[in-house]
Amino acid sequence: MIALDAMGGDSAPEETVRGAVLAARELGLRVTLVGAPDAIRAELAKHGDTPAGIEIAAASEVVGMEEAPAQGVRQKKDASINVAMELQKRGDVSGVVSAGNTGAAMAAALLKLGRVPGIERPALSTMAPYTERGILVLDVGANVDCRPSYLVQFARMGAVYATKVLGVDDPRIGLLNIGEESSKGSELAQEVHARLAESGLRFVGNVEPNHIHLDLADVLVTDGFTGNVAVKTTEGVADFIFRQLRVSISSRLHYRLAALVLRPALLAMRSRMDYAEYGGAPLLGVDGVVIVTHGRADANAVRNALRLASEAAQSGMMDAIRNTFSRELPRPAPTSAAASSGETRA
Amino acid sequence: MIALDAMGGDSAPEETVRGAVLAARELGLRVTLVGAPDAIRAELAKHGDTPAGIEIAAASEVVGMEEAPAQGVRQKKDASINVAMELQKRGDVSGVVSAGNTGAAMAAALLKLGRVPGIERPALSTMAPYTERGILVLDVGANVDCRPSYLVQFARMGAVYATKVLGVDDPRIGLLNIGEESSKGSELAQEVHARLAESGLRFVGNVEPNHIHLDLADVLVTDGFTGNVAVKTTEGVADFIFRQLRVSISSRLHYRLAALVLRPALLAMRSRMDYAEYGGAPLLGVDGVVIVTHGRADANAVRNALRLASEAAQSGMMDAIRNTFSRELPRPAPTSAAASSGETRA
Repeated sequence: MIALDAMGGDSAPEETVRGAVLAARELGLRVTLVGAPDAIRAELAKHGDTPAGIEIAAASEVVGMEEAPAQGVRQKKDASINVAMELQKRGDVSGVVSAGNTGAAMAAALLKLGRVPGIERPALSTMAPYTERGILVLDVGANVDCRPSYLVQFARMGAVYATKVLGVDDPRIGLLNIGEESSKGSELAQEVHARLAESGLRFVGNVEPNHIHLDLADVLVTDGFTGNVAVKTTEGVADFIFRQLRVSISSRLHYRLAALVLRPALLAMRSRMDYAEYGGAPLLGVDGVVIVTHGRADANAVRNALRLASEAAQSGMMDAIRNTFSRELPRPAPTSAAASSGETRA
Repeated sequence: MIALDAMGGDSAPEETVRGAVLAARELGLRVTLVGAPDAIRAELAKHGDTPAGIEIAAASEVVGMEEAPAQGVRQKKDASINVAMELQKRGDVSGVVSAGNTGAAMAAALLKLGRVPGIERPALSTMAPYTERGILVLDVGANVDCRPSYLVQFARMGAVYATKVLGVDDPRIGLLNIGEESSKGSELAQEVHARLAESGLRFVGNVEPNHIHLDLADVLVTDGFTGNVAVKTTEGVADFIFRQLRVSISSRLHYRLAALVLRPALLAMRSRMDYAEYGGAPLLGVDGVVIVTHGRADANAVRNALRLASEAAQSGMMDAIRNTFSRELPRPAPTSAAASSGETRA
């Protein structure tokens, strides 16, 4: 069972509810829709008989897309994203999907699920749309000022996710940086480079932003400020190119006619840049499965995100992350009593 | 007279020499071609009578595009970029244009021309191709780790350049940042925001990377790491989109035919993303006029860069920058002698 924040996203609850119905009918998934029951029932009614496996959990508030996330989550105790996380905390669901305010999803996850022990900072990730499978990029905004150790942890978490959920054997880890050589980049990037080289991960070195699309890495780590800039620049450039293309196409009749023929190719390209087709990307480092998808996600994207959450929940990813970082935890200083009782129990 | 590093750039000296010939013939500019005299003369010979105003200054070495800039400039005393800067230092030319290794241009400028007194760190700028006039973005790679004061100086220099050279009255200054509110972004970005708000400049606040193309600012400041990531991401995304478009267009015959009709529009869009049409962008903060243009610059782009350098040299930009920062210089502690002689002279 996956909890879906039915109220989150630009077209919620219409597209979220429709996405849940698709997931139940086409994929046999069980989904708990979290939000205003009346609004959810009204949407469900549009789709005929509600499939088995769709449930509703009531939540009376919503954290809006533009709202300050941490504040919204703390003040609106009964916000749909809080209730969804609470369901996972209680074990009623094995994962949460949100198409709403990403910062709020992170804040609610931290509040309700907490961090995996040993992880300093959870990260927000995204799938960069340059390869068939996508490239997992993290952090893309949760941690604007990072220490080197955070990025090394991002790499470890990303490697687990790529292996367990994306099905990549021995994933290639890259560092987003402004030059290829290890001596390039900020002090942070240089230090992270040195640490990743000794991490035991399959570190392929620096990847420059103009080479991301060349499929050099499966997981790309960066601080949240840089990652957010890269993601938003991508969005802006794609926007600009397609907008300008539309302007210049409409300037002449024969362009317009040719564009009509090319329309499917142009639309496919446009939607490919929209990140949504991969279903979403995880919050990594929080103690549970949380998949965030784009605020513009339509029903298909919501269905894909629900499938991804379900796969992630069944993948053993959380246990693998917990195991990875439990090794890094400081061990409790052995007292003679603890040491001996530990030994007798072992 | 403008010095052109004839040996710098992917198609040098062919395109650089042709660009100088165009600049002399079409714009009446005087250009000193710096580099290997034989190679330059061989190129000049392809264009018939060499126009008046074209001169040659010999330089026996070149700093290559992939060479470590600082090292190359220090070891190759007679590198074309060093000789070009030396000519400006001596007053033989009033500006330098380089299509070569940008880092080397910065290193040579610092070595030969030095910084404008009062400026902590010179910046590398670029013209982002989103408006007719372009948006001046700096720093885009010279200073990867920045203090807040550097970015405030970038803003001041950028404002002078926009006013004097780009002809923008009272230019709008923006801070590249990952959120609109002043509380958003890294510690660096937040501190710079606060200082710019009190700088007396026309500060329009944060500009998010996905909104750059919306013409919100004339000058956009950022640290060199972030700026370089934004520029290279732009390059990568544009590359990816046009490459994928080509793949999907060639997949079907009727797409190929339609694309043939649309070819001029697509090519225009592609070249617009190439940054070259604005002629180039300045190194700001070095004590002289230095315009760098893209390594892929063709003869037309070189001609435009020469025109830009000539306009910048005549614009009074350097005096304005010197004046702006002389006010920020620490005044020498007045001795009684200096103080009295100062008063009698005043």
